[in-house]
Order: sequence, then structure tokens, then C-alpha cells
Amino acid sequence: MPTAKAYACDDEKTHFHPATVTLRDPGPTEILFDIKYAGICHSDIHNARSEWRPASYPIVPGHEIAGIVTKVGSQVRGFAVGDKVGVGCMVGSCGQCEYCKAGTEQFCTGPGGTLWTYGPDRQGNPTAGGYATAFTVDQSFALHIPDAIPFQASAPLMCAGITTYSPLKRWGAGPGRQVAIVGLGGLGHVAVQIAAAMGAEVSVISRTRAKEADGRRLGASHYYALSEPGTAGELAARFDLIVTTVSADSQLDPLLAMLRVGGVLVDVGLPQHPSSLYMSSLTHGARVLAGSLIGGIRETQEMLDFCAEHQVAPIVEVISGDEITAAYDNVVASRVRYRYVIDTSTF
Amino acid sequence: MPTAKAYACDDEKTHFHPATVTLRDPGPTEILFDIKYAGICHSDIHNARSEWRPASYPIVPGHEIAGIVTKVGSQVRGFAVGDKVGVGCMVGSCGQCEYCKAGTEQFCTGPGGTLWTYGPDRQGNPTAGGYATAFTVDQSFALHIPDAIPFQASAPLMCAGITTYSPLKRWGAGPGRQVAIVGLGGLGHVAVQIAAAMGAEVSVISRTRAKEADGRRLGASHYYALSEPGTAGELAARFDLIVTTVSADSQLDPLLAMLRVGGVLVDVGLPQHPSSLYMSSLTHGARVLAGSLIGGIRETQEMLDFCAEHQVAPIVEVISGDEITAAYDNVVASRVRYRYVIDTSTF
Repeated sequence: MPTAKAYACDDEKTHFHPATVTLRDPGPTEILFDIKYAGICHSDIHNARSEWRPASYPIVPGHEIAGIVTKVGSQVRGFAVGDKVGVGCMVGSCGQCEYCKAGTEQFCTGPGGTLWTYGPDRQGNPTAGGYATAFTVDQSFALHIPDAIPFQASAPLMCAGITTYSPLKRWGAGPGRQVAIVGLGGLGHVAVQIAAAMGAEVSVISRTRAKEADGRRLGASHYYALSEPGTAGELAARFDLIVTTVSADSQLDPLLAMLRVGGVLVDVGLPQHPSSLYMSSLTHGARVLAGSLIGGIRETQEMLDFCAEHQVAPIVEVISGDEITAAYDNVVASRVRYRYVIDTSTF
Repeated sequence: MPTAKAYACDDEKTHFHPATVTLRDPGPTEILFDIKYAGICHSDIHNARSEWRPASYPIVPGHEIAGIVTKVGSQVRGFAVGDKVGVGCMVGSCGQCEYCKAGTEQFCTGPGGTLWTYGPDRQGNPTAGGYATAFTVDQSFALHIPDAIPFQASAPLMCAGITTYSPLKRWGAGPGRQVAIVGLGGLGHVAVQIAAAMGAEVSVISRTRAKEADGRRLGASHYYALSEPGTAGELAARFDLIVTTVSADSQLDPLLAMLRVGGVLVDVGLPQHPSSLYMSSLTHGARVLAGSLIGGIRETQEMLDFCAEHQVAPIVEVISGDEITAAYDNVVASRVRYRYVIDTSTF
């Protein structure tokens, strides 16, 4: 069985160290590929630090994966050795339930449900994620990475890209629509680009003006700082769609008040604690609060093709394996501009 | 100027007593009518008891009004003396803003916004609502009551009817859809009928089985009691649409867990205190929490015609003016089956 170099951590302190992982040989419908780049998503940190649920250690996180195919099974179609290939948050599903058939494998209701990228496999054994030099995946969960996207910047699209593309599309970001992105971080800086490329008039809502130049360069027409008095009032009933990417606990009522009649607030920040809102914030204006969970494989490929066509690409800081530990603290402290991508050639 | 007999209360203790109110003479576009029936809505109680904001006393509540036209202005079209006429929660708007033009006068953004039925008029003077024997209204806010609807039962449709019809229609209640109505009270017992008439498969979710026979007679195919252990688990991921009519503070997460992927929870109960939810309840399943505020005049007429066509009618207890005080306590204690309607001939 193939082995790969990896970076793992052994407990919730998340001190990463070199390790070796064993991969399965690719079956008839599977692809083996060399991982070249892996993004660091905030949810990797939540998982590795057991903040959502107890993790199974040692853990090799990573679900924003970009690489080059090295071997394909006999029944693989559409991928060949040497192709660029991406893997996101999921690597398996039943393929038979109504949600799989609808192309929303993230909601699979078949036996065992969706198989997550570095979660337990169907037998309950732990698997390794993207902080490694190789990976085996079924062709159904492999994405084609267009050449027009800078390779190292393509990795974060596998999660940050689809997480923002899907709700922007579902809720009608486009010409004539006022769209606000709350938080200009790993998710937000991609959301601004995608919303602008969809033709919407985009506003960034941030705490301060520290990232204003970046926000405007990424496609925002307006930039608002919540730390400035009067901002919330100025923005009353302004937006058709707000996507909040903030993972810290935050208040929903002030954001809901910024929606026009029938407007939609989508939360992809997934704060840890319960959120609170006055139901009247929804009633007055018949407003909507919506959740969104990545997107299906078909839509993820659509997103990649869209990004290639519209020159959408994450801004990344490429780091080596021995920088992962420090990078985690920087992500939590919002010190990354805007996504860390691990170069696995440093392993 | 015309006068009318009425029932008013003088403070938040809501002891109602006979009173006389003065109405304006109908202008060229206005209608004067004799009120025959007025429903008692829970929001009348909130208002009269200053539970949402301080009321201006004495107050004559009532926004579920059914009557007979007695006089019309020179420019009135479509209403004649002797016609049945209804008035709901609103009696004026600018008519010029985008929301008025779209037929959603409840969201008017013109000067002064929407004029509510027993709120202050454009000059800030208090006005009387439906607990009276006559009313003057502009033809733009008057509704035609079809003969097929029992007259005394038509009054509650002006609020309870449109409040439930509008979100059921917006969110696609219809054939092949699983719709749950939470709470079988004044709103809920109308919602069940409307959802069933729209063709949906309707479930009632109540605390106990006390109203099961009524729920099934009104059109529900299923009835669930939350007081029975295991109900919430049994209903996991069951519904496309849930409309909760419960005005008591309640937990959102258990209801959201009953939604299928992409399902929608609409709250028309408007609880007084903030509600709390884990954002993950929305994320997993890309679920939606939505508000709704009555409906526009055009949609209210559409609802009345729909109810006439499908034999939808509130179940009412007709009371006299001197029973209003006791009725308020009964509504709060959920002792009404299912809506009180005041017969103004008793004034």
C-alpha cells in the first residue's frame, strides 16, 4: 500500500510534527494523486482542537486539497496521470438517495451518510486529510482544476470557494442586487470576488477599515466599518443578501435590520455558541435567515469553472509543514492574509 | 360626523366598557360601513395590555372586521351600499413606493409608512378599531367578503387568514409537500385548513392530543403531541415547511431538526422575547428560518376568494360586548375554540 509523508498532531494543543500515513491502493474507480497544496480552513482548527467534538488523535487535517494524478483505476474516466485534481470536504456518499441523485452529496441520507475527508471511513477507521503528500479518492469526488486558476490558490476553493459560491447562487446574487459580505477573511475575501463576478453590487462589512483597500481591490464597491458609530443605522434596509462569514459569536438582529423586504441573511461562519434573535427582526420585512453547507460535487466543479472564467482566486500565503502550528494561532487571531496554503514539497 | 358605539378599555388591565367613538365622514374615495363582527386577535391583547409598547388609552382594538357598506364616496368603484366589506390590519399607505406598487402595503416605505387599523392617523390622532359599530375606510384597503364564507367567520380571516395564507403560498405548500402547523389556535386552525386546501399533506404539532379530533377534521393527515416522548426524534427531517403559530417563547432547534434539506420554518407566533438557535441547525440541511407579516391587500382578497372556493372558514365563538374582558383571559389561557368574534349588535 502506498505511504505518504504528512503532518499530524497528537492532541488539542495542535503541535504539528512530521508523520507517515498509509493510503489504500486505488480501486477500479479510484485515483491516487500527489498532493501539492493544502489549505488551512478554520474548521480544521475546530476539529484538531476538539472544539466541535472530541477528535481521534493523531489527526492529519486538510480538506482543501490540490494535486497531480499519479495513478488511476481501470474504470476511471475523465482523469489521467498528470492531471490537476482537487478534493474538498467530502470523499464518499451512497450515490442512491434523493440528495445524492440531486447532486447534493453533502446531505446524503444513505447508510453511513456523507463520508468526510479526514473523518472515519466506512469501517470506522481514521483517515488522513490534505496535510500529506498523497491521497486516494474515488473519481466521483475528484474535481478538475482549470489551468486558469493559479495552482497554489486553487486549494482553498475546494471549501472556501464552494461554501460561498453555493449560497450566493441559491439566493440570487447578480446584476441589480445589493450583496454584503460580513468579514473579510478566508471565506469573505473569496465571497467578495464571487459576488462581484456574478454581477452584484458588493459591500464589505468589517469591524474596522484595516482591510478596505483589499476589499475594494477584490471587487467591493462599498466598505463599512461596524466600529464606526452610525454604520448600522446607515445600512438599515439596504441589502438583498448578506453572507456572514464571521465565526465569532455575533448578534443577528443588527444584520437582519440591514436587509430589505424579503432579504436573506446566510450564515456560513458557524459560530460555536447559540445565536439569539428577536423573531420580529424576521417578521418586519418578511426576512429570511438561512444556512448553507458547502455544495455538491457538480456545483463545486461549476464553481471552479466559474472562478477560472472570472479570474477569481484566493489570496494565499504559502507555508511549509513546520509552520502549520504557528499558522493555526494566526488564523484564530485573524492575522492571515487571507488563506494559508501548505506546500507539501517542504515535508 | 358619524358616531358609533364601541367597547374601550382605559389601561393595561383591559376592563372593557361601552364607549362612543366619532368617525370621519367618508371622503370621495372612502367607504362608511356598519361593523357586524370583529375578531379578537392575540395581538389586540398585546397592544391593549401595552405588552409590545405603551398603548394610548382609551383604546378600541380590533383589526379583524366584517361589515355592511352604508355610504360610499363619489369616486368609490366596486363597493356599493349593502355590500359585505372587510378590513384587516392596515388602512393606509403611500401607494407610491416600490412595496406599495408591488402590492405589499404592509412594507410601505413612503412618508409615515403603513397606517395600522387602530394606530394613530397621519396627524397622530388615535383611531378606533373593530370593537365598534361603524368604520370609515379608504376603498384601497377594503376587501370583498364572498357570500360563500359564513359572515361571522369571515372576520378572523382578515388577520389570521392572511397571516397564514401568505407564508404557505410563498414557501410552496402544495401537492407532494409535507407541511406541519405548530399550535392549533386562532392562527393554527386556519393554517391547517389552508395548507390542506392547497393540496399539501398536513401535520399538526401540538403539546397534547386534546385537539386531535379537531385537527383531523380541519384537514390534518397526522397529529403529533410534543408532550409524548420520542415525538421530536420521530419527526426528524420530515417536513418541507413548518409554520409555527405559537406565541409563547419556544425552542427553535427542535423544530428546525424536523425540516428536510432546504426546508423552511416560518414563525408567525411572534414571541415576545428573543429566540435562540444553534446556527448549525440551519447549516446542516441548508435550512431556512423565515418571517412573515400579514400580506398585501391584493393577496388578502386572493386569500378570501381561495377560502370561499375551498370552504375554509375559522371556527368561531360569537360573544357579546360585555364578554370581551373575560375573552381576553381565555385567549391568553388558550381556552378559546378557536377564535372569538364579537357581535356588535350587542353593543
